[in-house]
Amino acid sequence: MSTTDDRIPQWGILKDMSDTRIRGYSADKDQLGKRLARIEGQVRGVQRMVDEDRYCIDVLQQISAIQAALNKVALGLVDGHVRHCIADAGGEDSREEMTTELMGAVGRLVS
Amino acid sequence: MSTTDDRIPQWGILKDMSDTRIRGYSADKDQLGKRLARIEGQVRGVQRMVDEDRYCIDVLQQISAIQAALNKVALGLVDGHVRHCIADAGGEDSREEMTTELMGAVGRLVS
Amino acid sequence: MSTTDDRIPQWGILKDMSDTRIRGYSADKDQLGKRLARIEGQVRGVQRMVDEDRYCIDVLQQISAIQAALNKVALGLVDGHVRHCIADAGGEDSREEMTTELMGAVGRLVS
Amino acid sequence: MSTTDDRIPQWGILKDMSDTRIRGYSADKDQLGKRLARIEGQVRGVQRMVDEDRYCIDVLQQISAIQAALNKVALGLVDGHVRHCIADAGGEDSREEMTTELMGAVGRLVS
Repeated sequence: MSTTDDRIPQWGILKDMSDTRIRGYSADKDQLGKRLARIEGQVRGVQRMVDEDRYCIDVLQQISAIQAALNKVALGLVDGHVRHCIADAGGEDSREEMTTELMGAVGRLVS
Repeated sequence: MSTTDDRIPQWGILKDMSDTRIRGYSADKDQLGKRLARIEGQVRGVQRMVDEDRYCIDVLQQISAIQAALNKVALGLVDGHVRHCIADAGGEDSREEMTTELMGAVGRLVS
Repeated sequence: MSTTDDRIPQWGILKDMSDTRIRGYSADKDQLGKRLARIEGQVRGVQRMVDEDRYCIDVLQQISAIQAALNKVALGLVDGHVRHCIADAGGEDSREEMTTELMGAVGRLVS
Repeated sequence: MSTTDDRIPQWGILKDMSDTRIRGYSADKDQLGKRLARIEGQVRGVQRMVDEDRYCIDVLQQISAIQAALNKVALGLVDGHVRHCIADAGGEDSREEMTTELMGAVGRLVS
């Protein structure tokens, strides 16, 4: 999807050398997976509601619930990025770059 | 999910009499279904990204894309509700109530 | 500010003929004015905080409070627009146009 | 306004000892002040619009412009906090605490 998915990672070689890449969310990976699975189920629930011609307002309420759940996931990722990726960045340049990336992500969430 | 799903509908009897209930989104039901199916796929894509230990910022970017897609769906539902449900409400009381429900929904989207 | 401010109003001549134009917010004009005055005071408060080198996080908290207050004002305007302007629109075309304008406004609030 | 304004600062004594406290926004203080002054002017502009019974949708457009400007200010403060306050935090505990505060602030902006 994202064209950035294929770009060369900040850590360069490290990415290919390591089977145990550390991400900001590594410690919470299981919980994160569960949350995303539940969000997927919520989206399917909305599809069912539409199929069944449910009242628009009820559909909207479920969409707001999904957005709240996504916000929670996003905030967890931001938290992990600041606490781990940025904190453990090897050097000033790397930290600067990760902070710039973080601000882009936070800007997309806020606007 | 929502406790409001089971409440007695505004239209009362009408709901049970009719197999072709009109909702604000009825005209766009196919398009709406396709959008939701695509959003479901995007959520699965994020799960895969987490499984593959993708970079936090890239995961966040995909989550923002999902939120934008959900906002679009939500705005379409609001539009349909105003143009059809409220416009066709049978009587002042019904319109008032639907507007109150609308404002609750818009308030949840905005905050 | 907005280039739309100077455009010819939907109501055309009516605007110039009437000293008592009805807006969606007319009934709540006093309360709306008070809320905006308080928001103006909050913005000045943030300026003072910056002058006094207050902690970033405390400044951010005040900005979030202003945004919540602005959201409340905006939702009140949307509510009034739906309940009065759209409900009282003289004819289908006018209602359609006002709904399109409304959706533009809601879209800007949501995104 | 905020009850947090009067709380004992994280830095304790340092606050009172120093006339040149560094904040995340110190380098951009002038620009920040100008932006806030402009936002104050925008809020006054909205008050005028209401006084003059301007069309709801035009008022809403101006409110959205103010919210966008406030978001920009908020993101600048978040950026400065991450780049300066957290980066320069003296020790792990202080950094953890500042990150927790940051996440509270970002959470308020996002939701």
